[in-house]
Amino acid sequence: MDDPERRLVASWRANARAWTRSVREGRIESRRVATDRAILDAVRGLGARRLLDVGCGEGWLARELAQEGVTVVGFDGSRELVVRADQAGGGRFHHLTYAGFAENPSRLGDGFDAVVCNFSLLSEDIGPVLRACRAVLAPHGALLVQTVHPVLGGSEPPYQDGWREERFDALGEGFRSAMPWFFRTLATWIRELREAGLQLHECREPLSPTTGVPLSLLLVASPGPDPGGEPC
Amino acid sequence: MDDPERRLVASWRANARAWTRSVREGRIESRRVATDRAILDAVRGLGARRLLDVGCGEGWLARELAQEGVTVVGFDGSRELVVRADQAGGGRFHHLTYAGFAENPSRLGDGFDAVVCNFSLLSEDIGPVLRACRAVLAPHGALLVQTVHPVLGGSEPPYQDGWREERFDALGEGFRSAMPWFFRTLATWIRELREAGLQLHECREPLSPTTGVPLSLLLVASPGPDPGGEPC
Repeated sequence: MDDPERRLVASWRANARAWTRSVREGRIESRRVATDRAILDAVRGLGARRLLDVGCGEGWLARELAQEGVTVVGFDGSRELVVRADQAGGGRFHHLTYAGFAENPSRLGDGFDAVVCNFSLLSEDIGPVLRACRAVLAPHGALLVQTVHPVLGGSEPPYQDGWREERFDALGEGFRSAMPWFFRTLATWIRELREAGLQLHECREPLSPTTGVPLSLLLVASPGPDPGGEPC
Repeated sequence: MDDPERRLVASWRANARAWTRSVREGRIESRRVATDRAILDAVRGLGARRLLDVGCGEGWLARELAQEGVTVVGFDGSRELVVRADQAGGGRFHHLTYAGFAENPSRLGDGFDAVVCNFSLLSEDIGPVLRACRAVLAPHGALLVQTVHPVLGGSEPPYQDGWREERFDALGEGFRSAMPWFFRTLATWIRELREAGLQLHECREPLSPTTGVPLSLLLVASPGPDPGGEPC
């Protein structure tokens, strides 16, 4: 499983320019018609004033929320994307790997009202980063995870956890590498949250306004009892 | 919405004989290949000794569990099905509507290790019955809800709550009435549990061994903080 993880990291380096253009030109239909608004509405619903954007990419969420007075700290494992985020402004952006975050969760601050992972949990082992998210949440805070909806991501049976590959075919030219990403079932998402000491209390399923198909799964969780060390 | 509720109740009266035969002859493929075992395994995993079977139908779950020493109390809104359950044995069976259960949850006992709703939450308004389930659970107890998986039940877009109709076409002759049932999205299931003071802590998604498609959603919840009266 080491190979897809390495290719995942490498893909963001290779595609940083094309990805940034795709986001900023609104080329990703699902984001344009449903999922950008879904995550913004979820943040607004929390009334969050300080937010950590995990896997911030080129920084669009921070730019949107900055206009509403939210203080955003973002980090990403891709230096290429962080540079672009920083140039566009809207928050404080840091180059930090998920492993680095997991090792010392509060290095970018803690007591956040909200921690957001917006289509940014793409690895197979997400336990450490989820526990780090929990560690930097305020007691009243919430973790928001937006991800591929099992109805879509699992549409090729068998419906089970595993690596998939995104080829960015719908986004035009400029992408130099496919991106491996780890699909997990609903059952696994719920287990991952629980094992990280996070309590799921809501999910949202934004629909395509044209097809009526869910375009994402948005999980809202809050800190539960401390799970201790590694889950058993 | 009153009409489908009435037709739902009437369908179980009309189909009691055909349904009983279908269950006892193993005609329902999804049950045979996956979902019967899923609910049995979930009960076994809890180590439950006293169990309330909500919407017990013709009583197969009680008969299975009785062989393992579990004491089962079952009830169903269909007198026709309860009579058949009683004749076959395996538990104590009662004719009781869901409204009657909601009105006085402990009339059949309380402090259950497990309360099971196995494909038996078919109405639109399930809040009262869920709150009643919570009320009769022991503090360590768990509610098990097995239901249609959103991937399947929502396969006709738009993916949204609403009445569907089961025609029993795959089960042979003898069915005299279609059955209206209320489909709810994953988001709605999670909200319903929370509003009833139940805390989702696990879900299972048993797959078809041949197609790899999930044949049900099995939710495991435990009593959370008292939700008070009606949810806001």
